[in-house]
Amino acid sequence: MDLTQLREPIVQAPLAGGPSTPQLAAAVGDAGGLGFLAAGYKTAAALAQDIGELRALTDAPFGVNVFSPPGDRADSAALERYAARLQPEADRYGVQLGAPRHDDDDLQAKLDVVVAERVEVVSFTFGCPQVDLVARLHEAGCDVWVTVTGPQEAIQARDVGADALVVQGLEAGGHRGYFVDGPQVEDLGLLAALRLIAHSVQLPLVAAGGIADGASVAAVMCAGAAAAQIGSALMLAPEAGTSPAHRAALASATPTRLTRAFSGRQARGIVNRFLQEHDEHAPAAYPDVHHITTPIRAAARRAGDPQAVNLWAGQTHLLAREAPAGEIVRGIGAEARAAVAQLARRLDQAP
Amino acid sequence: MDLTQLREPIVQAPLAGGPSTPQLAAAVGDAGGLGFLAAGYKTAAALAQDIGELRALTDAPFGVNVFSPPGDRADSAALERYAARLQPEADRYGVQLGAPRHDDDDLQAKLDVVVAERVEVVSFTFGCPQVDLVARLHEAGCDVWVTVTGPQEAIQARDVGADALVVQGLEAGGHRGYFVDGPQVEDLGLLAALRLIAHSVQLPLVAAGGIADGASVAAVMCAGAAAAQIGSALMLAPEAGTSPAHRAALASATPTRLTRAFSGRQARGIVNRFLQEHDEHAPAAYPDVHHITTPIRAAARRAGDPQAVNLWAGQTHLLAREAPAGEIVRGIGAEARAAVAQLARRLDQAP
Repeated sequence: MDLTQLREPIVQAPLAGGPSTPQLAAAVGDAGGLGFLAAGYKTAAALAQDIGELRALTDAPFGVNVFSPPGDRADSAALERYAARLQPEADRYGVQLGAPRHDDDDLQAKLDVVVAERVEVVSFTFGCPQVDLVARLHEAGCDVWVTVTGPQEAIQARDVGADALVVQGLEAGGHRGYFVDGPQVEDLGLLAALRLIAHSVQLPLVAAGGIADGASVAAVMCAGAAAAQIGSALMLAPEAGTSPAHRAALASATPTRLTRAFSGRQARGIVNRFLQEHDEHAPAAYPDVHHITTPIRAAARRAGDPQAVNLWAGQTHLLAREAPAGEIVRGIGAEARAAVAQLARRLDQAP
Repeated sequence: MDLTQLREPIVQAPLAGGPSTPQLAAAVGDAGGLGFLAAGYKTAAALAQDIGELRALTDAPFGVNVFSPPGDRADSAALERYAARLQPEADRYGVQLGAPRHDDDDLQAKLDVVVAERVEVVSFTFGCPQVDLVARLHEAGCDVWVTVTGPQEAIQARDVGADALVVQGLEAGGHRGYFVDGPQVEDLGLLAALRLIAHSVQLPLVAAGGIADGASVAAVMCAGAAAAQIGSALMLAPEAGTSPAHRAALASATPTRLTRAFSGRQARGIVNRFLQEHDEHAPAAYPDVHHITTPIRAAARRAGDPQAVNLWAGQTHLLAREAPAGEIVRGIGAEARAAVAQLARRLDQAP
């Protein structure tokens, strides 16, 4: 997958948990970007079906994003305290709390699917794949991308043979891709992360985090990225599976923040009641907390109530456009070319 | 001050507290950028002397940065508890704790100086100047810049008549420029801040935060900035007044973080012992805490001990170069032009 051969230097964020659909990935691919399917929170069979649907829609290459296995099981007392705290939420939405499973999201079966399907790109989030797994994917013709948040993770990913890195700045919506989900000394902004990583490793970089227009795409490419990953910017497209409550929140000026409240892992979402009431009590316990809160989030989503939904969004979600995904991709690409051409003229004419 | 008329689209960060010198501002101005003098933590008389020295060195335009007045006086009990906690630090460095003054850094006298001297640009940090103050500065021929961290502050600054905004991303070293120093819902990364602010106001933007090379300058200009402000990137220059302990820390890969430990206000510094031991105990009490810790920081600096010095630095401090300031400014400018030209060629040749 040579990123310089994309007609548009734009990669779709995987958008696990609802917005990801074969239709969205196909529209992005047909527009000249690189579409992605989210394997997360799905069965391997559902992933295989998504791949089949996508291939029926387009011949364009695409990627599949999988979650690396979670870390150690969390403190069960902390988990029980948090579940007890959430019982009134379950009552409020008329559901039972989910069971706190510490599972690996069916990773092996999903890897079997992407290998069998010889998917063009397999990207990892939440950790670095082992050398032998990277080799297995390479043998199947898959490029391996690893999501990183800083130079040390970048070096680790290079050393196992990653073909490209998704550099995630703290502006990004959804889960932070830390390899180890503990307290972080430093969360890097996207520009700083790109420059520090570009000085550390020689790999193609895909910039992710708060990129919602062409000016930002041009910016991250000046900063060394081979392409820009966009997520929130595609979530209002009709092809996306974004819920109505989530769509309304994305179009509001409500700020975002990082929280463990919904999943037990730091993720950026639009501030709502659930986040504000529970954030400081949520333990570092992914995916256990994700499973506990699933019924509450699903019920709130069905009810069109944004106040208990995990409203994942990047910091610039307000800039998302409501338009077909292909139009968004081509529009952002055109804006990026215009921004670069305009700046080239200005710098040429400097006194 | 038409930023498009600068030979290099580079503004020096004010760098209060030591690194700011007339020699540094003159070197930046002579290289085609815009030099700055920090009025902060100096007497008005010392500021006037700095302006005189700078004008003796160069005819280039320059700016002066002043601090807006602090907010309400902090809880005195919290301040006393923090002072008691720091007593062993004072003993360790053989000094007495400073007195916790809640002063305005001699603001009125400094404004009299910049008005009398008809300084080209007066920039504000820590708050928005009142309309009548902006008018007074305009009458004296000064352009007024305001440091902002998000769209709401940007709108407020536009509404009082600001001529340009310094958009500070959370990557930036030193103090965060929040108008109100309380808990923040959302700290924006620089790219996100630029795009959200560019969609909110029509003013020239100066991008600040983690910009240490030409690729980043090109990036923020693609994202709508008229110029880039660089701080850490100049702190190893011989013209800067950076202490030896601070220089050594800048050249290390040690991470940065935000802390109130040194001044009572959130500021980004390289992690050291003092920060780690006291951060979580420091009250929101600026500049009172600044005055309490001044003797400790000064003694540690004199002793060449970085562990109790406020090592302000942006997230990319590792990219700072040791070279004359003019060489740094011209080098970064040339890199920025090369990055834009290269990207323009690549996008032209896309399939």
